[in-house]
Amino acid sequence: MKKKPLSCDVWDTKTNRSKNISRFYKHKGNYTWQGIKPERYKTPGDDWAGIIRQAMIGSRGETAQFHLRYFEIAPGGYTSFEKHRHEHVVTCIRGKGEVTVGKKVHKLNFLDTLYIAPSTPHQLKNLEREPFGFFCIVNARRDKPEILNEP
Amino acid sequence: MKKKPLSCDVWDTKTNRSKNISRFYKHKGNYTWQGIKPERYKTPGDDWAGIIRQAMIGSRGETAQFHLRYFEIAPGGYTSFEKHRHEHVVTCIRGKGEVTVGKKVHKLNFLDTLYIAPSTPHQLKNLEREPFGFFCIVNARRDKPEILNEP
Repeated sequence: MKKKPLSCDVWDTKTNRSKNISRFYKHKGNYTWQGIKPERYKTPGDDWAGIIRQAMIGSRGETAQFHLRYFEIAPGGYTSFEKHRHEHVVTCIRGKGEVTVGKKVHKLNFLDTLYIAPSTPHQLKNLEREPFGFFCIVNARRDKPEILNEP
Repeated sequence: MKKKPLSCDVWDTKTNRSKNISRFYKHKGNYTWQGIKPERYKTPGDDWAGIIRQAMIGSRGETAQFHLRYFEIAPGGYTSFEKHRHEHVVTCIRGKGEVTVGKKVHKLNFLDTLYIAPSTPHQLKNLEREPFGFFCIVNARRDKPEILNEP
């Protein structure tokens, strides 16, 4: 099934796909960008809470071998405790968070950056009263996460 | 020739390579990170000026299909005017910059994000009095830039 164009897309009627063209995403303030729509993290479940996702790069016909996303976890929220073969690179840009990676726990503050190696169980949490926001870079082609029991 | 280990590397004596393990890079303040060494942008030439490069992810045995670098351009500095087949994703995190992409010129402020499509001539400049710093994500496997005449 063909993907529907997003409102901000430049559509190529010959290929019926988004065009792979240069694009500028202006930060509108409050961690939102012109042309990027906040979405739900993933299908609702009881393994995660309070997360908004913004697909920055990767869903508009870009050919890069990576995707860039911005996630924001509300106070008290957390991501699934999971593992997968693909890597994560996480950089904190808003508030503070806590991340479990294998047997380690790190506090994440502004610009702290984390490389999560393949098949390492991990979970990000917001234990603070302000939103916790971070960029997350992944390979464009990647495997599905395996949800694990609580760490 | 085998790569020499950086001081912060975890070395695998069996493979004589950096280990592909999870790593945490704490922001020390002033856009420097624990375990990451600022380097020169590239071999000195007259096509660029005033740039420091920090290889955040990609030079320590990571298997991700992308590299993350932080660049900082001093006041009056600029990158080469160049093009290449690989894509760039640029996010401004310090100061302000100006970027030429094809026939367009954009002002880059905090968190403004730019996707530069393949084979698009581009150049980043700092016309301000403060440093201009940005993250730049690229494919791990990529072609060499072709230096162009001034835009």
